[in-house]
Amino acid sequence: MAVQDKVIITVALSGVAANRTQCPYIPYTPEEYAAEAKRSFDEGCRMVHIHAREPDGTPTHRVGAYKDIRDAILSQCPEMIINFSTGSVGIPVEDRIAHIRELKPDIGALNMGSMNYAKYSERRKNFVFDVVFQNPFVDIMKFLTTMNDVGVKPELECFDSGHIGNCVPLLDMGVLSLPLHFSLIHGVLGGAPPTARSVAYLSSILPHPSDWEVIGVSHEQWLLVSAACTLGGNVRVGYEDNFYLPDGEMARSNGELTAAAARIARDTGREIASPDEARTLMALPPRAR
Amino acid sequence: MAVQDKVIITVALSGVAANRTQCPYIPYTPEEYAAEAKRSFDEGCRMVHIHAREPDGTPTHRVGAYKDIRDAILSQCPEMIINFSTGSVGIPVEDRIAHIRELKPDIGALNMGSMNYAKYSERRKNFVFDVVFQNPFVDIMKFLTTMNDVGVKPELECFDSGHIGNCVPLLDMGVLSLPLHFSLIHGVLGGAPPTARSVAYLSSILPHPSDWEVIGVSHEQWLLVSAACTLGGNVRVGYEDNFYLPDGEMARSNGELTAAAARIARDTGREIASPDEARTLMALPPRAR
Amino acid sequence: MAVQDKVIITVALSGVAANRTQCPYIPYTPEEYAAEAKRSFDEGCRMVHIHAREPDGTPTHRVGAYKDIRDAILSQCPEMIINFSTGSVGIPVEDRIAHIRELKPDIGALNMGSMNYAKYSERRKNFVFDVVFQNPFVDIMKFLTTMNDVGVKPELECFDSGHIGNCVPLLDMGVLSLPLHFSLIHGVLGGAPPTARSVAYLSSILPHPSDWEVIGVSHEQWLLVSAACTLGGNVRVGYEDNFYLPDGEMARSNGELTAAAARIARDTGREIASPDEARTLMALPPRAR
Amino acid sequence: MAVQDKVIITVALSGVAANRTQCPYIPYTPEEYAAEAKRSFDEGCRMVHIHAREPDGTPTHRVGAYKDIRDAILSQCPEMIINFSTGSVGIPVEDRIAHIRELKPDIGALNMGSMNYAKYSERRKNFVFDVVFQNPFVDIMKFLTTMNDVGVKPELECFDSGHIGNCVPLLDMGVLSLPLHFSLIHGVLGGAPPTARSVAYLSSILPHPSDWEVIGVSHEQWLLVSAACTLGGNVRVGYEDNFYLPDGEMARSNGELTAAAARIARDTGREIASPDEARTLMALPPRAR
Repeated sequence: MAVQDKVIITVALSGVAANRTQCPYIPYTPEEYAAEAKRSFDEGCRMVHIHAREPDGTPTHRVGAYKDIRDAILSQCPEMIINFSTGSVGIPVEDRIAHIRELKPDIGALNMGSMNYAKYSERRKNFVFDVVFQNPFVDIMKFLTTMNDVGVKPELECFDSGHIGNCVPLLDMGVLSLPLHFSLIHGVLGGAPPTARSVAYLSSILPHPSDWEVIGVSHEQWLLVSAACTLGGNVRVGYEDNFYLPDGEMARSNGELTAAAARIARDTGREIASPDEARTLMALPPRAR
Repeated sequence: MAVQDKVIITVALSGVAANRTQCPYIPYTPEEYAAEAKRSFDEGCRMVHIHAREPDGTPTHRVGAYKDIRDAILSQCPEMIINFSTGSVGIPVEDRIAHIRELKPDIGALNMGSMNYAKYSERRKNFVFDVVFQNPFVDIMKFLTTMNDVGVKPELECFDSGHIGNCVPLLDMGVLSLPLHFSLIHGVLGGAPPTARSVAYLSSILPHPSDWEVIGVSHEQWLLVSAACTLGGNVRVGYEDNFYLPDGEMARSNGELTAAAARIARDTGREIASPDEARTLMALPPRAR
Repeated sequence: MAVQDKVIITVALSGVAANRTQCPYIPYTPEEYAAEAKRSFDEGCRMVHIHAREPDGTPTHRVGAYKDIRDAILSQCPEMIINFSTGSVGIPVEDRIAHIRELKPDIGALNMGSMNYAKYSERRKNFVFDVVFQNPFVDIMKFLTTMNDVGVKPELECFDSGHIGNCVPLLDMGVLSLPLHFSLIHGVLGGAPPTARSVAYLSSILPHPSDWEVIGVSHEQWLLVSAACTLGGNVRVGYEDNFYLPDGEMARSNGELTAAAARIARDTGREIASPDEARTLMALPPRAR
Repeated sequence: MAVQDKVIITVALSGVAANRTQCPYIPYTPEEYAAEAKRSFDEGCRMVHIHAREPDGTPTHRVGAYKDIRDAILSQCPEMIINFSTGSVGIPVEDRIAHIRELKPDIGALNMGSMNYAKYSERRKNFVFDVVFQNPFVDIMKFLTTMNDVGVKPELECFDSGHIGNCVPLLDMGVLSLPLHFSLIHGVLGGAPPTARSVAYLSSILPHPSDWEVIGVSHEQWLLVSAACTLGGNVRVGYEDNFYLPDGEMARSNGELTAAAARIARDTGREIASPDEARTLMALPPRAR
């Protein structure tokens, strides 16, 4: 990947950690997910990352919920690339993968290692939360086995350099194969610090060939989006990661977040990938029609 | 310097390599320089880098021409920080420094080393120009001696890592003293390649404490501006370096170029320095009033 | 820290993961620890990192065992700097810190984050072991509170960039204070990959001022020792990390491992720190006498 | 290239800047060059870089002198790879390339850009010498045209990142073709600073595929040799670059310098390439026999 390549914008439409108390625009129902996907697509989004919710907003791993959301999105945006979450702190692997097996999205997210997953409040001088995000190889292998069985490409979610290094044995065993698709996640306390230098370093140690995007969580997201654009990477935005536009205002839709990412990409001289170009860049097969 | 610091935007109003045949908005007369400086200031520019021209547009080293331009700018923008060029290929040092001695700008540019200074045409498969930009230490010492005599802070214009390394003996001799003020110039064939990784590397090897800006010449300028913003640096734009806005349109004023730089800075979460903040960040004394 | 600084060689005399079946020279009794410490000191070692064992070789957290080993070492090497381990997979914090509180070594090791801690066999195409090494902030805080209470300097053991980033809230809370002392651990599957580029990157993101050493586990240890020496860092060797000399022969003592580290340091132009110089470089108070 | 690859040791037997007043072991006659080549080969050297001298020690560009030296070396070391210098400050290109055209060595050195070429004395607070080393593209093109005509592979001697960037137009014009062979020269004032971080950075921006070695001039040579070994590169030593062993003693032969380089390589876990392996790694054809 290089700065000459077009940028793929992914939107994480909803997440599960926040709700409408914090941000009233988060989609809950399949129709809301679809409307948000359409707003995002119109601004340049080519892939949506989905954590499912029940129509009342409750986070869920129910396969039917994932199906309803996916179907609603594809009815509005037939070219949208579908990416399902599998990550959850404290939930058994089996519950986190059934929707992958059943629904075969284009891409399934896969957390590639363990770390502290914490948040600190400078004001309170205390930790807001502090857990160990556990993803031992035994769990990673279960996810990969299923993904390989059903032909879903894994998105290798790496929070630090060791998570990238964890690919080595998996490539050696043949459960991963090149080209790989990476997300380099920055901004979670416990993982890589949210700096442009970290994006530069982590993107420099990926196996070849691979494509990569940056996921920036919270305040420094836009800095990280810019850094990814200058370094030849792709970007993810959306309510899961950050509610706020670069000017500090809460975005009224994922479409506004997408538009900001597209503006940043264009300001660095990058063009926005079309749906077909995005598939090619991520080495995905053409959408079955 | 860090991403928490505010950004200083410098504008190189005119340059001398191009003229109105290429870009009709380049200022020639003192009044035009001043109007361009004002447009830039209003969008966030805090320092102007000046190559003088005679009122008919001819490049000049004449002290009076520099004086007229400076006076016109300060009458419009009394807070603007004044930075004079000293660089020229093939002109004796003495002719390149009289205006520094006489007019004592806030900052005088100083080329910190030698290199090929070339341009290549992919279309023609040939070099458009190809010279050796010669700045041996004997010349650097002459500039520094004069600048030290009259109390002008040098802007250390570095086209590559060796130019930064050239500070070491000058610090040891005491002709340079910390904190230093650097420009990291990218995009000239012969110097550092115009990439975010280069900005990251060069900015990581500066002596402490120093402030730095990126100068991006031609196509990749906006990418380099973004990279500088994500890495905690300052930026320079203006007709000397590039005529075009990020969308490929020719800018109709330096103010438009400044506005684009300010938008990029804000999109990465950086704020724009005020004139006083810019002086503090560059360790300049307050403007005499 | 810079390549002009002298190198501090630390030796991890014994470890607990291996025993004399794998390497017959591992010390078990206090006298053996002391003899190994003396052999190491004579070759340039200035600090010993100690995991205690009962005299029959069984790993232990018993305070008395730590005391006997420490006293034996200091009787042989009164200038040796004493560094106690606190790391263990699956043992409660309380059992891992009593010896710090009671015996007040110069330095107590402190694991700064969580990660997979695994080993892969290329030959068997399988994981030899695969656990989550859990060090949430709640545990880190317990260790630091005790260390601060009794005046023991923490050795911040970082397996990846996020572990370094975990210092930020701890500095903000005041439970850590500059200058810091880091170990950058490479070579454990789950943590930072064992490469010179990783050492260069991780050492570039430490808070200032800090000192740092590299710990290289297993095969690539000597490459990592060389890398640390070229980058201005300190080094650790010893049976805990690796049994083998650069030529592939099993070392017959920790002294032989120390001698190899000292040769590598000198071959890169570094000198070996004296005990007093080592204390100064690590910002330790002079040894009470 | 990777740390798993074997190391190629090159020896610059003589140079021309120094003479026997400074170092009595520098070879002058063809027989002395051959004896030094043999001593080096026996310790692991696989390529010799040759600046010719007349038998009285006077530096020369005379084709016959190059021929006599080459023939003497090959009679002693038939497998030695032959690399001729072309660099000289202030000599016309035509005089610097006749030996390449006539004698067709395996490799011809080619300086890839311009820079200050200076030396500073901290003691005297003054420059010992200070010239501009001029290598505009017009000269580079002349060398490359000749080398391409006679089938000699160029060694791209790069003193900074811009010199590496200068390959881009030459690849585009087809006068260079992949894989490339680079020397990254460190330690000349005016070029890249002599640090491991510089070796890491410059080696990370080479076009793929390429092989590379580090040339370290003067004091920091051994640090740079170590850095190259840890980063997967090859190394050059020899009287042209440095007279002294790591312990500060003057080497009594190039063989001693080679032995030190081989020890450092082995201490980082690298093996020494055989002559055939060296040819394969540098993409040279097998030696005609």
